[in-house]
Amino acid sequence: MGIQNAKQHLSSLQDERVVYYRGERVKDVTTHAVLGIGARHASIDFELAEEPAFQELMTYIEPSTGERCSRYFKLPECAEDLLTRREMIETATREAAGLVLLIKEIGTDALYALHILCHRLDSACGTDYSKRLAAYHAACRDNDWSMAVAQSDVKGDRSLRPTQQAHPDYYVHIVEERADGIVVRGAKAHTSHAPYVNEIIVLPTRALGEEDRDYAVAFAVPANTPGMRFITSPFSEGSQSTFHHPLSAEHKMFETITIFDDMFVPNERLFMKGEWQFAGDLANTFVEYHRFTAVSYKTPWLEMMLGAADLLAEYNGVARAGHVREKITMLVSYLEIVRSLIKQAALECKRNEVGMVAPDPVLTNITKYYFATQYHQMVAYLQDIAGGLVVTGPSEEDWLNPETRGDLDHYLGGIAGISTEARLRLFNFVRDLCASDYGGYNEVLNIHAEGGLEAQKLTIFRNYDRTFCRDLVKRFANIE
Amino acid sequence: MGIQNAKQHLSSLQDERVVYYRGERVKDVTTHAVLGIGARHASIDFELAEEPAFQELMTYIEPSTGERCSRYFKLPECAEDLLTRREMIETATREAAGLVLLIKEIGTDALYALHILCHRLDSACGTDYSKRLAAYHAACRDNDWSMAVAQSDVKGDRSLRPTQQAHPDYYVHIVEERADGIVVRGAKAHTSHAPYVNEIIVLPTRALGEEDRDYAVAFAVPANTPGMRFITSPFSEGSQSTFHHPLSAEHKMFETITIFDDMFVPNERLFMKGEWQFAGDLANTFVEYHRFTAVSYKTPWLEMMLGAADLLAEYNGVARAGHVREKITMLVSYLEIVRSLIKQAALECKRNEVGMVAPDPVLTNITKYYFATQYHQMVAYLQDIAGGLVVTGPSEEDWLNPETRGDLDHYLGGIAGISTEARLRLFNFVRDLCASDYGGYNEVLNIHAEGGLEAQKLTIFRNYDRTFCRDLVKRFANIE
Amino acid sequence: MGIQNAKQHLSSLQDERVVYYRGERVKDVTTHAVLGIGARHASIDFELAEEPAFQELMTYIEPSTGERCSRYFKLPECAEDLLTRREMIETATREAAGLVLLIKEIGTDALYALHILCHRLDSACGTDYSKRLAAYHAACRDNDWSMAVAQSDVKGDRSLRPTQQAHPDYYVHIVEERADGIVVRGAKAHTSHAPYVNEIIVLPTRALGEEDRDYAVAFAVPANTPGMRFITSPFSEGSQSTFHHPLSAEHKMFETITIFDDMFVPNERLFMKGEWQFAGDLANTFVEYHRFTAVSYKTPWLEMMLGAADLLAEYNGVARAGHVREKITMLVSYLEIVRSLIKQAALECKRNEVGMVAPDPVLTNITKYYFATQYHQMVAYLQDIAGGLVVTGPSEEDWLNPETRGDLDHYLGGIAGISTEARLRLFNFVRDLCASDYGGYNEVLNIHAEGGLEAQKLTIFRNYDRTFCRDLVKRFANIE
Amino acid sequence: MGIQNAKQHLSSLQDERVVYYRGERVKDVTTHAVLGIGARHASIDFELAEEPAFQELMTYIEPSTGERCSRYFKLPECAEDLLTRREMIETATREAAGLVLLIKEIGTDALYALHILCHRLDSACGTDYSKRLAAYHAACRDNDWSMAVAQSDVKGDRSLRPTQQAHPDYYVHIVEERADGIVVRGAKAHTSHAPYVNEIIVLPTRALGEEDRDYAVAFAVPANTPGMRFITSPFSEGSQSTFHHPLSAEHKMFETITIFDDMFVPNERLFMKGEWQFAGDLANTFVEYHRFTAVSYKTPWLEMMLGAADLLAEYNGVARAGHVREKITMLVSYLEIVRSLIKQAALECKRNEVGMVAPDPVLTNITKYYFATQYHQMVAYLQDIAGGLVVTGPSEEDWLNPETRGDLDHYLGGIAGISTEARLRLFNFVRDLCASDYGGYNEVLNIHAEGGLEAQKLTIFRNYDRTFCRDLVKRFANIE
Repeated sequence: MGIQNAKQHLSSLQDERVVYYRGERVKDVTTHAVLGIGARHASIDFELAEEPAFQELMTYIEPSTGERCSRYFKLPECAEDLLTRREMIETATREAAGLVLLIKEIGTDALYALHILCHRLDSACGTDYSKRLAAYHAACRDNDWSMAVAQSDVKGDRSLRPTQQAHPDYYVHIVEERADGIVVRGAKAHTSHAPYVNEIIVLPTRALGEEDRDYAVAFAVPANTPGMRFITSPFSEGSQSTFHHPLSAEHKMFETITIFDDMFVPNERLFMKGEWQFAGDLANTFVEYHRFTAVSYKTPWLEMMLGAADLLAEYNGVARAGHVREKITMLVSYLEIVRSLIKQAALECKRNEVGMVAPDPVLTNITKYYFATQYHQMVAYLQDIAGGLVVTGPSEEDWLNPETRGDLDHYLGGIAGISTEARLRLFNFVRDLCASDYGGYNEVLNIHAEGGLEAQKLTIFRNYDRTFCRDLVKRFANIE
Repeated sequence: MGIQNAKQHLSSLQDERVVYYRGERVKDVTTHAVLGIGARHASIDFELAEEPAFQELMTYIEPSTGERCSRYFKLPECAEDLLTRREMIETATREAAGLVLLIKEIGTDALYALHILCHRLDSACGTDYSKRLAAYHAACRDNDWSMAVAQSDVKGDRSLRPTQQAHPDYYVHIVEERADGIVVRGAKAHTSHAPYVNEIIVLPTRALGEEDRDYAVAFAVPANTPGMRFITSPFSEGSQSTFHHPLSAEHKMFETITIFDDMFVPNERLFMKGEWQFAGDLANTFVEYHRFTAVSYKTPWLEMMLGAADLLAEYNGVARAGHVREKITMLVSYLEIVRSLIKQAALECKRNEVGMVAPDPVLTNITKYYFATQYHQMVAYLQDIAGGLVVTGPSEEDWLNPETRGDLDHYLGGIAGISTEARLRLFNFVRDLCASDYGGYNEVLNIHAEGGLEAQKLTIFRNYDRTFCRDLVKRFANIE
Repeated sequence: MGIQNAKQHLSSLQDERVVYYRGERVKDVTTHAVLGIGARHASIDFELAEEPAFQELMTYIEPSTGERCSRYFKLPECAEDLLTRREMIETATREAAGLVLLIKEIGTDALYALHILCHRLDSACGTDYSKRLAAYHAACRDNDWSMAVAQSDVKGDRSLRPTQQAHPDYYVHIVEERADGIVVRGAKAHTSHAPYVNEIIVLPTRALGEEDRDYAVAFAVPANTPGMRFITSPFSEGSQSTFHHPLSAEHKMFETITIFDDMFVPNERLFMKGEWQFAGDLANTFVEYHRFTAVSYKTPWLEMMLGAADLLAEYNGVARAGHVREKITMLVSYLEIVRSLIKQAALECKRNEVGMVAPDPVLTNITKYYFATQYHQMVAYLQDIAGGLVVTGPSEEDWLNPETRGDLDHYLGGIAGISTEARLRLFNFVRDLCASDYGGYNEVLNIHAEGGLEAQKLTIFRNYDRTFCRDLVKRFANIE
Repeated sequence: MGIQNAKQHLSSLQDERVVYYRGERVKDVTTHAVLGIGARHASIDFELAEEPAFQELMTYIEPSTGERCSRYFKLPECAEDLLTRREMIETATREAAGLVLLIKEIGTDALYALHILCHRLDSACGTDYSKRLAAYHAACRDNDWSMAVAQSDVKGDRSLRPTQQAHPDYYVHIVEERADGIVVRGAKAHTSHAPYVNEIIVLPTRALGEEDRDYAVAFAVPANTPGMRFITSPFSEGSQSTFHHPLSAEHKMFETITIFDDMFVPNERLFMKGEWQFAGDLANTFVEYHRFTAVSYKTPWLEMMLGAADLLAEYNGVARAGHVREKITMLVSYLEIVRSLIKQAALECKRNEVGMVAPDPVLTNITKYYFATQYHQMVAYLQDIAGGLVVTGPSEEDWLNPETRGDLDHYLGGIAGISTEARLRLFNFVRDLCASDYGGYNEVLNIHAEGGLEAQKLTIFRNYDRTFCRDLVKRFANIE
């Protein structure tokens, strides 16, 4: 079949899936006044694949079928594949106004991890998950399906293990095993873009002990599978005025609380069933690919922060001030450090037993940690350069009202040669980006999405071989 | 007359003032669906003055009249006065959910500065501004008027002086001098709470040269003075759901672009008219009092950040994690450093030639700078502890919908013993505080209100006498 | 007897104490080429007490005897006592070129803590430690003795408790109980100024369990007590050229490894003997007073950093550069934040059951932590302003050699009006302060002395009552 | 001739060069008690070129002669050349205990820059500098000469240009032009390793104006040229005990004040003579190559910081503490960020008009700035983990003295299985590395060598094309 186009994709979402938004069951997510924005945003993925300027980057010819497919589905076999994937994610996100599309990125991260883990499971347990996974991967690729990943369990008391919780459902678990499949119960938090995908891939969220056997479960199901419900968070909803919200009025991501109410999963869609020893490995392998994805999609947002700071410094007449130049220099450095490090993580990739490569985990996590811990300071630099009018300026309605427009035009100009309207638009852009519901939503996601800061520190510490440095010291300290 | 009550205050605002909001002329700011929230918020000032628990703190007996008056009007004559003022501002802000009331605080900062400057002007120029100011101060106090201060000119190209701009109106200036007063034109940006006060006090925003003589102007006028218009910024408007926005649904501050369209100011309300040599001194003297006010009202917000982090750490079951305790320790330190420093600024106050005291400018600016430059990091700590559900959680409508409430209640619990609703309310509290339009608005104000970071650094550098330290070094470095 | 003078003090150290330095037993610490420097440095304490300009600050009239005594011995009974103590420590340190004298400061911190703990021990255990301590305190005061405190055990494997170690001697412990006293064995690390004091006070270093009973021991002995040996660390030894080392050539502190080789302690000098439940309380109570002392003596060093940066900025001709002014502003802020916070810790002191006051532990630890974590950055600022010649400049011998002096004088000048020699002296001052053995020694002590950073964070976290902030959040989040 | 060996190199330095050290003319720098250490350190360069394990990396076959030459002399023609050069510098520095050898590195940075600038000068001015330079380069390469670069003028008042200074000699300048060459006067500061090289290359230090024409001068001369004198700074001199100073007792770099006392330079060694328009370009081109070198040699030092922290954490028994792991993670990240970024700077190199490549200037400067601004914090982390005994431990003489060794051995052990001596050696290693004269010297060089922090910020700001980011913002902000 090949590549879906955006229209086909949107049609494919009209399938009786159970989506709630603000207390109501949503009949059609593609036409809903608010949720439709997210649907159209996500479908940019399909538009780009058809645009001549981007097709080369966004697609590839699959050797086994000779078909042109979305490049996301290509397993990474060398550093170049990872570099191209990074560029594809960066480019697609940039074309989507800095907000990741995420209807292929995260799903393929999961497919990559499953490829590796299914192989390990099969080797260790004599199962045949790899065959199932290969078939599923081919189906996704050939049908050009979109996918969401539900990984983070709701967790209850985070200091307790799944079986120690007040009730057994804080982590998704198997409640019944049948000949033809299993029945699962539980809920996953913040499943990004779940309303807009064909498939939901479910992965365990943490390492498990033997007593947690029922929680070791991984599978994939269509988004309209009976028993699955999506309760969509409204907190990235802003206004639909592109003057006030030039970014978020047209680009949104929506997360759901995803409920599995005794949902049936057939065997052929099941990739882990009780093999608790491998749950942590699967969770980590996924997250390592996904952190690479994450850093890849951050750079366009940072490009916009830098560009906005630079333009507003000019419009406000402060471009020559020493502290302004210093802050812009810091924004440049931040962007390019993030971009350079993640490229280096690709270049120093490791090959594994199934012939795939994974980005260097130490560098990937260093990059993600560096990105996330410096972000708020960069927001402060941008807000500082932008000025107070970003949050105390006039409304679109005042700008359109002839009674007030004259005053606003006269008084809110900046440097000569730049229209007041351009300056107001730029204020609104900065506010939408970094001083708003949308900005706050992004701040929180920068910290929490793809695993928190502590997880990144731990990964760096555990994966870095310090022997070389220790031996160097012993040598020069004359310690035998 | 004494102390107004809240109802009297609100009535006093129904006076034909020209206020625009989202493209419409607002008939009555106290009953307007959105602006009314700000009106009620500000009027808490009057409520507290009547509450027995706070009256002692919020009021004093004016010796000249024997009347109980709002304590804001008391000129600071000793460190104790400043410490009490700090406590009053902190307490009032805390009672108002962390958002400063600002209908007396900033106005009296301006009155203090004018007391000093009118004295200096009279001494140097033989004018009688002090007499006018004393009468105006008494009127404000005895009528218990509320006041806004319009200081920041719209500025146009910030690298240019007033007379170098593309048009002469980027700074408020005198366009006509009459026997009984002057006519002014121009606009001031972000005048906080202008729609809710009786009086607008106008001050120059910067030091001026001789060629800027017409821009050296300070005065006070009633808010309904003909020729003055307020265009109100909508960017602190959130929803009116106290579930989603427990803070901002009931507590708002509104800023205006304040237009002076050839407005007449009578002589008795005029406190500077062309004395350009004193414009910088007035601007600075005001801002030094005002930064003390600013830091005084920040602490309740920081108390809420700390309390929210601490509660959510508990509710999420992560209170014992080392990194969580570290972040909470950082929030404690931040709060108490800010509070301790500003107290010390009061204790080390300087007495001036009119017998008033001013907080130590070096310590005040150090505190403000420290507060503002650390704030975003503290937001990051709170967001980190709070977790991603802060921005991906369910809506109030989902919580109220019986179809979804059961799932949410079952799955979104945290530690045992805390209701799911409490946890959701806390998520919403954190989002409203620090990951939202309201949070972004506050971030920008923390950087820009009361003068930017560069101004604070400059004040520290200029006001600190480094001779003592230089001499100490010379002594021990054996430099003659 | 009253106040010793410096000469008497130095004589009192010639008492057969067992001091090793660089492999040799030191016959007389006061005349030793290197150790004598430390002896003279410490004796500044006695000089100041006799100087008219400082006597009022450094001494007080003891009511019980009518004698003028060193003020260090005065128990703090109110905030003013703490503020005066802070000023005394700051002043004495400043007069000693920024290096604390520490032959009364730390000893009286220990006496304060023992006053409180002996009372608690007596109340709980029916002992009579308080009587012993009062007599000892009076003897110290009336003889004007100097004192060192040996607290930090050598600790072996820090992850193990005393009784779990490879041998029992990693913490000082009782090896024999006799009718008239006890015999102790063990070693304490980095006992500051032990070679220069009359008395060594020994305190436990940590909380203990019941199995650690023998490690719960506190006492005081003369420095020449048989069985006690001091192995002195040489790492603050620099050259004795005051040109190269204007500070450290004349001001040094020396630490010892203090060995207790089955040393006898008579009962009247014993203040804790096996009461393991109180060991942690004693350790902490001491350290809280001592951290207050610590921060009090840091400010003169910071004054010198600021003064040196400011002078060199001028001498180098870069005083007007924006980044230089910013760095100087940061040095000003750092100094004044530290000073303000520790004053506030005194003002917010807590009174305990014996009528003494202790500085607020939260603020004291916040200050110490802030000081210690910002210090290295401030060193970087100073080094940045100072320039590379600080470590690549010529030697004193080159400066004195007529063959090279002319070149150096001609080429190493800075701005006009400042002699080359003054500039070279300033380079040397900065290197000695912050880019040398002496600077490195101070960096490490800033981190480790008076308890490490983690201990400070823990103290802040444990002592801060977060209930107030939690309740505030519950109130406004509408959580019952 | 090919490759010199170390012995030949050392012999070549016995050439009557005029070197002063501590007030005395040094007869032979290779046998001088202190300076000899630096000579032997630098000669490691020649040793490595002969060691089979390193020869491949350290040398190459020069096509024009078929001879094996030091690889430093190879002009970089592609990214791979830069990556190899980075690895060579890193490796050589690592083998030399973390201290750069710098007798080829900086000299070839200068040759690279001169290649480019001579071409530009010849194109613009019709000169024949390129031919001279090619001959000089070939001579250096074929004789395997070592080279120092004297760039930083002594500068006097840094706010003034060369001709504005109190005397004309604060910058090196031409005092006479002859048919066969020129005569120069002036002095350069901190010429690294000048006593140990065959050749001194002199470059201008800044952009110049037309009035500074005489200061636009670049040349190379043998180190024993009459009129040139080196006054060597003693501040990296520590003890020669490898117990106390395991690094600096055997590895030192010495800087000189280099005096040009009316020194004659023959035409064939002259590469710029008055072409003031190109002085800034030459200074910058050199410094860009040199910053790449600089970052390349930093990593082994950081490896040692990390290794020492990791070993001491283990030896002290604190390896499992959360804060210790966090600090080690930060040291890992720091090292690998620096290494990754500089590799990326090589990969994104730019090709210039003479077919050479230069590392990306934005990334190179970002790396250098990041390295230099984070370094002091990393020192603090290491000192924190290492513990106070680093500066309060015993001397070598105490360790060797049988009277004290037993105590030290018994009491200064750490975890079981590690000898006390190993722990003491590690303490000494850390002190030598980061809390000593040697550590302070390195801190200052990290900030100042290869141009200060402000220069790096400026280079980033000026070289980064922000158009792309600005256009992206305009596109999404709907600004035409």
